Amino acid sequence: MPTTVGQYLLYRLKQLSVRHIFGVPGDFVLGFNKLIELTPDIEFINTCDEQGAGFAADAYARINGFGVICITYCVGGLKVANPVAEAFAEKSPVLVISGGPGVSERRENRLLHHRVRDFYTQKHVFDQLTVAATILDHGERAISEIDRVIQAVVDHNRPGYIELPRDMVNYPISMLEGSDPIRPTALPLGPRFNDMVSTALAMIDRAQTPVILVDAEIHRFRLHDTVRQFAETLNIPMAATVLGKSTISETHPLYIGVYEGGLGHDSVRDVVESSDCQILLGVLRSDMNTGVFTANLDPAKSIDLTYDRLIVGGDCVESIPMGVFLDALIQSGIAPKSSRFIPHPPEHRPFVPEPVPVSVRRVFDAVNSRLTEDMVVISDVGDALFGAMDLVIQSHTEFISPAYYASIGFAVPASVGAALASPARRPIVIVGDGAFQMTGNELSTAIRYGLTPIIIILNNGGYGTERPMLDGPFNDIFNWNYSRLPEIYNSGVGIKIRSEHDLNTAIDLAVNDDTQCYVLEVILDRHDRSDALNRLTAGLGAKV
Amino acid sequence: MPTTVGQYLLYRLKQLSVRHIFGVPGDFVLGFNKLIELTPDIEFINTCDEQGAGFAADAYARINGFGVICITYCVGGLKVANPVAEAFAEKSPVLVISGGPGVSERRENRLLHHRVRDFYTQKHVFDQLTVAATILDHGERAISEIDRVIQAVVDHNRPGYIELPRDMVNYPISMLEGSDPIRPTALPLGPRFNDMVSTALAMIDRAQTPVILVDAEIHRFRLHDTVRQFAETLNIPMAATVLGKSTISETHPLYIGVYEGGLGHDSVRDVVESSDCQILLGVLRSDMNTGVFTANLDPAKSIDLTYDRLIVGGDCVESIPMGVFLDALIQSGIAPKSSRFIPHPPEHRPFVPEPVPVSVRRVFDAVNSRLTEDMVVISDVGDALFGAMDLVIQSHTEFISPAYYASIGFAVPASVGAALASPARRPIVIVGDGAFQMTGNELSTAIRYGLTPIIIILNNGGYGTERPMLDGPFNDIFNWNYSRLPEIYNSGVGIKIRSEHDLNTAIDLAVNDDTQCYVLEVILDRHDRSDALNRLTAGLGAKV
Repeated sequence: MPTTVGQYLLYRLKQLSVRHIFGVPGDFVLGFNKLIELTPDIEFINTCDEQGAGFAADAYARINGFGVICITYCVGGLKVANPVAEAFAEKSPVLVISGGPGVSERRENRLLHHRVRDFYTQKHVFDQLTVAATILDHGERAISEIDRVIQAVVDHNRPGYIELPRDMVNYPISMLEGSDPIRPTALPLGPRFNDMVSTALAMIDRAQTPVILVDAEIHRFRLHDTVRQFAETLNIPMAATVLGKSTISETHPLYIGVYEGGLGHDSVRDVVESSDCQILLGVLRSDMNTGVFTANLDPAKSIDLTYDRLIVGGDCVESIPMGVFLDALIQSGIAPKSSRFIPHPPEHRPFVPEPVPVSVRRVFDAVNSRLTEDMVVISDVGDALFGAMDLVIQSHTEFISPAYYASIGFAVPASVGAALASPARRPIVIVGDGAFQMTGNELSTAIRYGLTPIIIILNNGGYGTERPMLDGPFNDIFNWNYSRLPEIYNSGVGIKIRSEHDLNTAIDLAVNDDTQCYVLEVILDRHDRSDALNRLTAGLGAKV
Repeated sequence: MPTTVGQYLLYRLKQLSVRHIFGVPGDFVLGFNKLIELTPDIEFINTCDEQGAGFAADAYARINGFGVICITYCVGGLKVANPVAEAFAEKSPVLVISGGPGVSERRENRLLHHRVRDFYTQKHVFDQLTVAATILDHGERAISEIDRVIQAVVDHNRPGYIELPRDMVNYPISMLEGSDPIRPTALPLGPRFNDMVSTALAMIDRAQTPVILVDAEIHRFRLHDTVRQFAETLNIPMAATVLGKSTISETHPLYIGVYEGGLGHDSVRDVVESSDCQILLGVLRSDMNTGVFTANLDPAKSIDLTYDRLIVGGDCVESIPMGVFLDALIQSGIAPKSSRFIPHPPEHRPFVPEPVPVSVRRVFDAVNSRLTEDMVVISDVGDALFGAMDLVIQSHTEFISPAYYASIGFAVPASVGAALASPARRPIVIVGDGAFQMTGNELSTAIRYGLTPIIIILNNGGYGTERPMLDGPFNDIFNWNYSRLPEIYNSGVGIKIRSEHDLNTAIDLAVNDDTQCYVLEVILDRHDRSDALNRLTAGLGAKV
């Protein structure tokens, strides 16, 4: 049984399957770092910068169901404001544990280093970025405050913040018996639940051409199996949004592809937009998800379910439990739909290199030809993401990307979190040069902990997403010898790739050697980009 | 005359001698980036990461008197929360200009990428970290809002925040004539000003052993010449705090050294603490500045002046104009003090290398022997800072360090800002391996813009400040081949240093070649540290 506040916090984290905590130490958090070190089954992962810890914990949370950042006061905590905002925007259950000045030091109101305006500044910042935040400045309330914050994180799949004054780490608590693990609060069905189920069933029953559109919330609330079962039971085809890509296996026979409104493939668009019953599951109507608001989804013929509300035929009810609602549809006994012709993503095809310079499109062709179930694809923002829309993700492969919040620099540190959360899957990271210069150092963190990601750097000398919107020298990126970085970190293989033949050889080498990391630097023409990105930036550029 | 909101903002910045703006572009700010590109005399400096832009702008502001960060919405803005908090804590006049969603897009309440909770999230975060913040969402109020925020930055020497919706950049304004530059608001003297001057003069007149203690505020409010004149007129010796180091030339005949309470040199401590009249100018009583609160300063015999209040002999008045008060003391006509024996910092001595492994202390000895007036020394946190307390800074040399807020990772990006603010001075950067792994990439930014800093990396394989407080594997840093980084950036010279002879040769090479940057990687024993750091960490470690 835990006997101190610090031990209790770690006890709760273990119940949530947390085996790794990401961060950078600092004097206000050293005592808690020591406690982590002494705790079996939880390992502290030192990143180069706190920003890297934030992105790593976000990726870890997306796979593991809960992720933790542990950093020091202000100089550490404020550095993770952006990754935590991303976790909030994209519904990733990340807990921030920040060390802080001791309660006794706060009473004396001393000008301790790392202080900004007052002792509450950092808490006030995280009030904006989390669903629950606390400072554990009262020993007697520490347990209930820890539980309150973790409960909110689990319920909303969004970040929480716990500030741990350094003199509270070893504050004694007394527990005679263990507590049950914290699980999501069961939402009440509400008086109109049965009505909504009946109306939805009637719509589905009437429909000739229903379609399911799946977004990331389904993944975050771990409902992918329920959704698959729902589609199979009623024989309804499924598309995914950009953000929801890979929530459903892309080799599933009912899977038709990624829907991106007017910017995506016509075959998928036709099925979704011509449908007489659009079943939207967790769909966030963001610009990226809707092809810059070119999506044509009709509320009158929609069943639109998200974690905070259900709309059926224009009628809205708040906070319906998603899983219970989907189960009711599955168990309704209505007749499955008759099969009809639906499109499918193209099969994997062998990559046959031509004697020509390499292009973005062909990088994705080459990756697609090698994708297996023991990989996790992590795309950064930009063409690393849009080009990836045509990858066919296998049933047990994960695909991870910050496709809504779109913070560049996510992918390399995320590969550390993903590889630790899911050791059986090797990360394939696709990242632009601009993003790599932000956080690519965290490759050394991967190496430090024996991970072996394959990092594919799309080196086009600039912010390629922005050039077609409005170009100037501000979009240029200073060139690095990326492929030589393994020499800096004393491990791994770097390869510079200029032709399709180079690409083919390098990818073969990398995929067949999982004993070390690979840095594949792909030299691209500065104006080369994927078709998807061309369509998107035309849409976004009109607003600049 | 400016004819748009964006032009007006740049017009105001030019009046404040801003010639460089630091940032990373993004689609919400591209239009303003284009406007900067088209503006003569202002150059946009692309950093690798927004964090680097934040630290660079802070250093630029400390030298130039005003610095600017320009970044995109949330994914850029939230990344500079920490550097802006530093500028707030250490009183550095930095303006954050963030692009943002257009006013028309906000009205439609669309789920644009980069959004966190609502369109005000980023503004709410910066409300915590700045003295004034605004969103320019009303064209008619844009000019007055820009002026209000800049006025607050100038008055308080602290950060401000302006969010510029992308459809407001080209919003038309009409100005028939130019506006006067924004200058600090003249504070009223107040009814008790003359009393306070008289009391202070009487204390000084009575005193046998008055001493002046100078802190960073004097530098930030550009009062160093006034303070020097005050000391010279009355023949009073001067010490500096850690944070105020180099505010007064350390070769000035009245300068005695850095006062660090019980942790510093006894000779300086004796003069300050035995004084019968302690004249504290801008002194922040932080832990670093007071030798972890071991300083012995007696309010009963102090004249204690800061920008927000004056305390004389225990009597307090708010908001006395510092410069006017000091001028009144200078012009009072009271007799100068008779000269007495005071200590001085040691003279520069030639560095004579011994055939032994290099140590932290000897790195500073070697640097000290080569310091000239055309250098700026930039210390990161840790031994890079504490070892530097014994450097003797020349009259026109700057010394820059985040000595109160103590955010590691400051120094390398700060060297970019410092070199651009003061092109005649070459940066000597002293940085630990932990700090370098956070932001060292910004060396490529220095190279991109033709700057030639000398980067001295103290490679001791860990967070050396923390080891003596509480050690564990969390304090270990993965080793890099730092000296080979110039090969990644295609420019500069890297040298690995193991002995004092290596050090001597390398420093000579670096100092005598200002055509390129140098990376001097100093391999240290993991437990080697300066005496100053040993004393400090003993004080801080007791709290862990």
